[in-house]
Amino acid sequence: MNNFKFWSPTEFVFGKNSVKNTAPLIKKYGGTKVLVHYGGQSAIKSGLLAEVERYLQNEFIEYVKLGGVQPNPVDTLVYEGIEICRKECVNFILAIGGGSVIDSAKAIAAGVPYTGDFWNFFERTVSINRALPVATILTIPAAGSEGSDSMVITKTRGALKRGAGSPLIRPVFAILDPVLTFTLPANQTAYGLADMMSHVMERYFTQTTGVEITDRLCEATLLTIINEGPKVIREPENYDARANIMWAGTVAHTGFCGVGREEDWATHGLEHELSALYGVAHGAGLAVLFPAWMQYVYRFGIDRFVLFATRVWNIEHSGDKKEVALKGIRALKDFFSSIGLPVNFKQLGAKASDIDRLIETLKINSGGKLGAFYPLNMEDARRIYEMAAME
Amino acid sequence: MNNFKFWSPTEFVFGKNSVKNTAPLIKKYGGTKVLVHYGGQSAIKSGLLAEVERYLQNEFIEYVKLGGVQPNPVDTLVYEGIEICRKECVNFILAIGGGSVIDSAKAIAAGVPYTGDFWNFFERTVSINRALPVATILTIPAAGSEGSDSMVITKTRGALKRGAGSPLIRPVFAILDPVLTFTLPANQTAYGLADMMSHVMERYFTQTTGVEITDRLCEATLLTIINEGPKVIREPENYDARANIMWAGTVAHTGFCGVGREEDWATHGLEHELSALYGVAHGAGLAVLFPAWMQYVYRFGIDRFVLFATRVWNIEHSGDKKEVALKGIRALKDFFSSIGLPVNFKQLGAKASDIDRLIETLKINSGGKLGAFYPLNMEDARRIYEMAAME
Repeated sequence: MNNFKFWSPTEFVFGKNSVKNTAPLIKKYGGTKVLVHYGGQSAIKSGLLAEVERYLQNEFIEYVKLGGVQPNPVDTLVYEGIEICRKECVNFILAIGGGSVIDSAKAIAAGVPYTGDFWNFFERTVSINRALPVATILTIPAAGSEGSDSMVITKTRGALKRGAGSPLIRPVFAILDPVLTFTLPANQTAYGLADMMSHVMERYFTQTTGVEITDRLCEATLLTIINEGPKVIREPENYDARANIMWAGTVAHTGFCGVGREEDWATHGLEHELSALYGVAHGAGLAVLFPAWMQYVYRFGIDRFVLFATRVWNIEHSGDKKEVALKGIRALKDFFSSIGLPVNFKQLGAKASDIDRLIETLKINSGGKLGAFYPLNMEDARRIYEMAAME
Repeated sequence: MNNFKFWSPTEFVFGKNSVKNTAPLIKKYGGTKVLVHYGGQSAIKSGLLAEVERYLQNEFIEYVKLGGVQPNPVDTLVYEGIEICRKECVNFILAIGGGSVIDSAKAIAAGVPYTGDFWNFFERTVSINRALPVATILTIPAAGSEGSDSMVITKTRGALKRGAGSPLIRPVFAILDPVLTFTLPANQTAYGLADMMSHVMERYFTQTTGVEITDRLCEATLLTIINEGPKVIREPENYDARANIMWAGTVAHTGFCGVGREEDWATHGLEHELSALYGVAHGAGLAVLFPAWMQYVYRFGIDRFVLFATRVWNIEHSGDKKEVALKGIRALKDFFSSIGLPVNFKQLGAKASDIDRLIETLKINSGGKLGAFYPLNMEDARRIYEMAAME
């Protein structure tokens, strides 16, 4: 087991009607002038935005609004948010939405007190030293950003999709009401399932030995998603299933499942190029790429793939490690298919003929190397894209 | 799944040589005058106390020392600690030790800014509104107090052993170096294993339905302890095994394994009377009482005991629920025996003839009712003590 630090100070308030805690929580964490940041029409149509505004007004908390966050949130809106916050003396950011909105809010929170260009955080030329407190009312369980110290933003010019992180951007509180997820369409629900499973698998596949505790916790989270996932697709208003999935999404990405081990994150790197180029949902891209990544790297740590097959997918150990490992990968792919996710380029709407372009931007974004389980160079990455392009 | 709040802001710094972070962490959390609180001779003999003092001196952090915390920490030392802190204008408490030292430190931390008698917190007549920051260097993985919001103190007069809690007493940081646990004797190691398993089981046995995620996380933690526990007994200097157990002890009791479900805690209530009367180790008392509690209550929720047997102990489902449930309980008892723990009154040094006395104090401490899985009255409690008294 490796040395580690784990610090997750977010206050999670979970359950039915938990949104009514919004104003007291903002006050508790020092917010007096709030930027309410949200996405498109769903927060308006559902009445959630109006409900939150009412709570703020009743408690005399001043606020300004900034909507319009798109999936794969972009730098231009972050610049706009930073400008509004400075002009309006905002001291607290409240994100209402899913991972895209929260990531956009985190970037604004870090950008406001920084005198340079916030993109420097994503170029990794400076680190985040200060940030406004950010909090969230989660509406899409997927990205885990409500409990994480990271964010991903796309630079419109050049379609660069990059991540950055700091303990300072962990939300001070996160409100999670599973009822808010009842209206999520089946496809978005499924993208979320692939995303949260990927957050666990990026941590599960490691060469670090002697980390039984996080092995078991990763498997526990995956088993829950595999069991409850099909239920939320079939019965979108099943409260307990929605609740299990919502909390699993948070557990998957607080960092808790990765302590003591080297994490991988190659597949996320590969996927960012797909969603930057095609605008596809992150979870859809991950569903296509994760099995392909596995098929490429399993040889370099087969015992872990045997563990994955037997403990997560309940596959009997035949004695032939390769057979068992491949069955586990197959089970994952079948599971993704069964909940309506794409598992190859064609189903995703991606083209094999674009692989050169994908590799080109991947090289810039990754510096030519990615992953840790088996460190990939650009030739490896090309092979994985090619495998994902096969039907 | 029930609504819940989960807030665990403790900064965990885990691994080899992590003690060297002590002084910077104290400064980070505002400590300028520290009470260094510890137990008996082990912190002195091991050189840990001297090492910490050196770090504090090098960083010009003033401190006073208070040692002498005993297992089952007592109110009299808490009063002494409170007095010292007030006199010396201490603004930070550092506990070096296991759960007893940390609990004593927490009680001091809550007692210093309170003008009344700190025991009121344990009488539940007042709640904790303020506390000095408390932090810990953990040397015994067992109680989970390094990451919990609770504490247990024994009132010398009347041998009343009681718990109290508040988010304000969660340690601001916890340093966990598994190497510090290499010298723990086998019996103390085993008591710790029983204690951390009990912290999970008090949460696992619930009537709340639809909490798959915490079911799986509880099982994951138990599976780790069952796998790694015998290793730390056999090979006390196996770093990875010690590391897994140390972190499992924290995971077991941060609250993470209990969110969304009603917890039980009857067995802890029953055990407090044993350790108050006989001064036995808490973990030893739990090892005796948990199987007895299970044998008494399994009828009132047999499906959960079947889950425990099949998922935690890998017992095949024969079709006969009662048989499977009892096999699971037997497996737990056998496991406790295999790591050298007592599993009945005789092995513990307790006497069936004392049951009247145990019930008498239990009635005072519990108000005559305890537990939630199957709420026990004093007649039920008597039966469980009697079952534990059988060989």
